[in-house]
Amino acid sequence: MKSIYLSKIREQNPLIHNITNIVAANFSANGLLALGASPIMSDSLEEMVEMPNLSQAFVINIGTLNGKEQKSMLLAGKTANEKGIPVVLDPVGVGATSYRRETIRQLLSEIKFTLIRGNAGEIATIAGEVWEAKGVDAGKGNVDLKSVAQRVAKEYGCVVLISGEVDVISDGTQTATVHNGSPLFPKVTASGCLFSAICGAFLAVDSGDHFAATLEACVAYTVAGEIAAEGLTTQVGQFQIRLLDELSALNVEKIAQKGRINE
Amino acid sequence: MKSIYLSKIREQNPLIHNITNIVAANFSANGLLALGASPIMSDSLEEMVEMPNLSQAFVINIGTLNGKEQKSMLLAGKTANEKGIPVVLDPVGVGATSYRRETIRQLLSEIKFTLIRGNAGEIATIAGEVWEAKGVDAGKGNVDLKSVAQRVAKEYGCVVLISGEVDVISDGTQTATVHNGSPLFPKVTASGCLFSAICGAFLAVDSGDHFAATLEACVAYTVAGEIAAEGLTTQVGQFQIRLLDELSALNVEKIAQKGRINE
Amino acid sequence: MKSIYLSKIREQNPLIHNITNIVAANFSANGLLALGASPIMSDSLEEMVEMPNLSQAFVINIGTLNGKEQKSMLLAGKTANEKGIPVVLDPVGVGATSYRRETIRQLLSEIKFTLIRGNAGEIATIAGEVWEAKGVDAGKGNVDLKSVAQRVAKEYGCVVLISGEVDVISDGTQTATVHNGSPLFPKVTASGCLFSAICGAFLAVDSGDHFAATLEACVAYTVAGEIAAEGLTTQVGQFQIRLLDELSALNVEKIAQKGRINE
Repeated sequence: MKSIYLSKIREQNPLIHNITNIVAANFSANGLLALGASPIMSDSLEEMVEMPNLSQAFVINIGTLNGKEQKSMLLAGKTANEKGIPVVLDPVGVGATSYRRETIRQLLSEIKFTLIRGNAGEIATIAGEVWEAKGVDAGKGNVDLKSVAQRVAKEYGCVVLISGEVDVISDGTQTATVHNGSPLFPKVTASGCLFSAICGAFLAVDSGDHFAATLEACVAYTVAGEIAAEGLTTQVGQFQIRLLDELSALNVEKIAQKGRINE
Repeated sequence: MKSIYLSKIREQNPLIHNITNIVAANFSANGLLALGASPIMSDSLEEMVEMPNLSQAFVINIGTLNGKEQKSMLLAGKTANEKGIPVVLDPVGVGATSYRRETIRQLLSEIKFTLIRGNAGEIATIAGEVWEAKGVDAGKGNVDLKSVAQRVAKEYGCVVLISGEVDVISDGTQTATVHNGSPLFPKVTASGCLFSAICGAFLAVDSGDHFAATLEACVAYTVAGEIAAEGLTTQVGQFQIRLLDELSALNVEKIAQKGRINE
Repeated sequence: MKSIYLSKIREQNPLIHNITNIVAANFSANGLLALGASPIMSDSLEEMVEMPNLSQAFVINIGTLNGKEQKSMLLAGKTANEKGIPVVLDPVGVGATSYRRETIRQLLSEIKFTLIRGNAGEIATIAGEVWEAKGVDAGKGNVDLKSVAQRVAKEYGCVVLISGEVDVISDGTQTATVHNGSPLFPKVTASGCLFSAICGAFLAVDSGDHFAATLEACVAYTVAGEIAAEGLTTQVGQFQIRLLDELSALNVEKIAQKGRINE
């Protein structure tokens, strides 16, 4: 694919505001820095008006949700909407508990999202599909992911990215699949959380074409992972370090050569 | 030793619910994933009834304790007891402050634990022994660790694992020592926290023989560390990455060849 | 430079109490351990009188500030002052929001600090200089950093360390610059937070010469980073792992050979 947005991230270093979980905070910040964006992690209610006004995108992740974070998510999300910056939702483990389902329901009703990124189980839960969730893992189910992505995208007027062995991206009208990646991804915790943060960086510089930006984010991240995994089998520790290295070393040539998209 | 439980973890991918600290959250999740289990980190009071019902084991770690976590630990612990899944206690730095001692006293009085895992200073504190604690490190003292382990195991009707240069495991009746490991372990933060989480994964698949499962967990973790440390001297950074790699690459042959147990 | 304090850290293993953020907690703890100090991370209000009494230094970092942490910072800071142990302030992203500015103002008025360490933007904000801050990054401005450091040092009666491509250290009377380091440092999240924690370890063993201890801390940390970066270009993941390795392998000879100071 032809890379449009990666060079803009490196030029503009967009500030990405994240409300994220204690598992992902360090890894997401390092991944954003490696890519060329600037991370800021904050969930203080006192900062949730100023932060979106400083930032070029806002990423909400419910991985280790608590009552205090929830209020901050709502306030920062509404402020981000008013300002017009992209807002990404990562509904981590939404199928696991009623508290997460209820929180996601509220976030989706009060905030206008630019992108929802989750694994198959998480997006299926949002779509109301029958799915055997397993904690924060993808779990199992028998649904057509393309039509689920399209349906959720239409319902919430946003782009949807279902990540997995094949990644599915839809804005309700256009739908594409990305065939890059590595089986090591699901063996590294917070690799999905970082994926959402990376999408935030691409959306921050996209001038409005959110589908194209999400598609390039997906190719960029999974190609970096594919290169990182070269020669590795079971080395999950090395993979997470190399993934940061490869996000840093990523360029338009690698995206052009290695990206495998079906549109 | 003959490995019984490692293959069950890989087959069943038990979901391990952790209430843990901000230092250990990422490393513990990655270590559990590397081994073949599924981690979920949550301390939201709203989820503490559902989480144990989804999970196959529950691990409590008081490393960065606060008031909110404490209530969640009690609720999830009692729910886990009702459901009958194993509950592990990691009394991080219990000797350091009266708040930690009081919290541990309460947890021990209201929750039935399957395993208490700590360093010598932590278990000595629980046993009421005189001990020179040092923050969250093991510190120094002059007690017979085998008899301390036996006594604490009898008092709380659970397995006790005292980790250190030699690891001591007792259920009050049977006592064993494990002679694997590396001097690099105490140079990596949260390596004890991950040890407790790993024990949770073995207990999750043990069909009731908690002493045997803890013993295999101990051998598995310290053998993985021993292999990870091969050729390293001062490289504490590389050690933590290789430890994840070796947990992922661990198999029954390595446990059989390298495990050094005295029973 | 002639190293005085590194060997004392290795002999005394000072306990460094940190109230830090969810991004830095693991990396700061591992860096302190690698250097030879003992980290303890705690922000529970219930422990904020005992912790400083157990510890040899206290480090406050406002990276992911919330209301609860703030009270703990004040109580632990005052207790540390009463006990007479060094207190380090890392005003992460103080220019970003009014909440951070107000919190820093309060901390500076109620706690006597031994050292304030920040990037140019953070220290310029404290000095009341015009500065274009960017989240938690250094940002841009046109001020003489030496005179800013001197002025802030005089105003608060403490040492000030402005970290950057050239590090500036002043106690208001003496001023020095350190010319070690690597362009990879700002590409690793929490590398500044760890810097502050490392300073805490040197101050913990300094017998009162805080300027000299901060200067050696600065040389030690940036020399370790310089060695860690040898042969690396874009590998930000490997750099963070090697930085831990080199903190562990650091010795007086490397500090003597590689330290570049202008006094």
